Amino acid sequence: MSAEVVSLRPRGSQPSLAPILALTAAGMNSVNAVILERMQSEIPLIPALAGHLISGGGKRMRPMLTVAGAELCGYQGTRHHKLAAAVEFIHTATLLHDDVVDGSDLRRGKAAANIVFGNPATVLVGDFLFTRSFELMVEDGSLRVLKILSNAASVIAEGEVDQLTAQRHIETSEERYLSIIGSKTAALFAAATRIAAVVAERSEAEERALDAYGRNLGIAFQLVDDAIDYDSESQESGKDKGDDFREGKMTLPVILAYARGTAEERKFWEEAIAGFRTEDEDLAHAVELINRHDCVAATRERARHYAQRAIDAIAGFPACEARSAMAEAAEFAVARRY
Amino acid sequence: MSAEVVSLRPRGSQPSLAPILALTAAGMNSVNAVILERMQSEIPLIPALAGHLISGGGKRMRPMLTVAGAELCGYQGTRHHKLAAAVEFIHTATLLHDDVVDGSDLRRGKAAANIVFGNPATVLVGDFLFTRSFELMVEDGSLRVLKILSNAASVIAEGEVDQLTAQRHIETSEERYLSIIGSKTAALFAAATRIAAVVAERSEAEERALDAYGRNLGIAFQLVDDAIDYDSESQESGKDKGDDFREGKMTLPVILAYARGTAEERKFWEEAIAGFRTEDEDLAHAVELINRHDCVAATRERARHYAQRAIDAIAGFPACEARSAMAEAAEFAVARRY
Repeated sequence: MSAEVVSLRPRGSQPSLAPILALTAAGMNSVNAVILERMQSEIPLIPALAGHLISGGGKRMRPMLTVAGAELCGYQGTRHHKLAAAVEFIHTATLLHDDVVDGSDLRRGKAAANIVFGNPATVLVGDFLFTRSFELMVEDGSLRVLKILSNAASVIAEGEVDQLTAQRHIETSEERYLSIIGSKTAALFAAATRIAAVVAERSEAEERALDAYGRNLGIAFQLVDDAIDYDSESQESGKDKGDDFREGKMTLPVILAYARGTAEERKFWEEAIAGFRTEDEDLAHAVELINRHDCVAATRERARHYAQRAIDAIAGFPACEARSAMAEAAEFAVARRY
Repeated sequence: MSAEVVSLRPRGSQPSLAPILALTAAGMNSVNAVILERMQSEIPLIPALAGHLISGGGKRMRPMLTVAGAELCGYQGTRHHKLAAAVEFIHTATLLHDDVVDGSDLRRGKAAANIVFGNPATVLVGDFLFTRSFELMVEDGSLRVLKILSNAASVIAEGEVDQLTAQRHIETSEERYLSIIGSKTAALFAAATRIAAVVAERSEAEERALDAYGRNLGIAFQLVDDAIDYDSESQESGKDKGDDFREGKMTLPVILAYARGTAEERKFWEEAIAGFRTEDEDLAHAVELINRHDCVAATRERARHYAQRAIDAIAGFPACEARSAMAEAAEFAVARRY
């Protein structure tokens, strides 16, 4: 039962990231120092472009999971700082390439790197960060960690291509969508958390538990991300609202609205996802249809299911500050409005 | 003296790739099998796009250097097949990203992947091949090889960004140009050859010798590539002739023609590299100026210097078929017209 796991939090209060932020604050300071140091290069364009995105903030969820996982495992060393930075570099590289692929205008509330620096530099600096990530892992020297993270990176790339293939295809199923977000998002959440158990030299079962926590949290996180893009009650997400709609991305709110819609509504979705309805009034209509069929709420309900699985995956660890903070982070992933 | 090293070849004959192709034929069959097997994915777009480039041929110089280096070291195992495939995947990934960055139309004599499949898919499949390359290295399990290749990959990415920064800048020096091609091309040639000594468990000095062979060969190779783009006597290169000119790339033939030119000629180069002279007649004029000042020949002379250094770098190995074939490959790199 999740009630036991999240017992530190008063019933009825809103879940928050505050406990996991407090838990990981010291560790994340070290991780951020590695990130800043290792994004440097003698080629000035590299730190300029990388810094544009990296100093733009972001929640740093993935390296935070490595640090939190290390706390949960009682790890006392510092190896995970470099590895957490490697995880963030993989993520940053995929964000840069995503923004080129999607032709994004906004990222983390400011102009996307591709807009400021152009597509060519954005592709190449993404490549640089990706290679730098592998250099960090090789410096650490654990083949087991290298295997986990290189496999995750490969799965992410496959997921990105799969998402591209599904784009503008109205017949995309919920199963296919779950497979895509499992690859493009959850694989790195899983790997980031799992490697904490590896550096702490915990058992294979504990590795798998951390992997399951990260994977389920990642799915919940992405589901809510995709819900927010159509949620009229959410704050700004830092990217342009309606981007998914205009790009014809088949996310769960759309899949559900199409499945639950009337024949007339389905015709609208077919035209919209094919790219023939991209005006502001079309987006407003899409939001209205999604609300009419409770698809934002249904997407959040799906997310709740995965968050619960994440919480239960780490229930075998002894009760401690780290376990409570990680459980609340999973609850937060569902409840968040930004 | 190189005369000793290349003693198997009759004086006065044209240097050829035939000896290194014969030397590496069996090994390259195994490497090609790994390449074909490991570019597969359940996402059909991945093998379709990767296969478009990979089945388009190419000389496979880099994996061939790994195989040739293994022969030179008398290595009897098969570990280098997987690693040579990893090297080719790194190269393939950079070609795909280069074509997006340059907006190329042609590659290896056919429509470039970005033209056939679009920029988004080309970026993402490049990422996939890059991650697959690391998976292959991790499977091999040598941290020393991982260090050499991850460092090379990082240096390549820096070189690509540096080249982008130098583009359309007429004041780029020969030194800067050499630094760029040392990173974007020679680093992978060096690493590809060096890892043969690692798997063969040869001495550090032998590792460094193979590294120097590959690095100098890579510089010679790129110099001649850049010469061919302006060489009226060369055959088709498989890419569009004049691409470098239209993209404002500061390659050595241009650097020399600018340095040796009159005030009027310099004005032409300034306008052309800035992007204001991109018509066919401008390209014809550029070729004429480059010929007037013997800049193709001068670039080939520079290449000859590096090829000689490559040949001398492996002079300490006992005379054998592999050493002769590698020496002749360096001579071929200078003499080639395609």
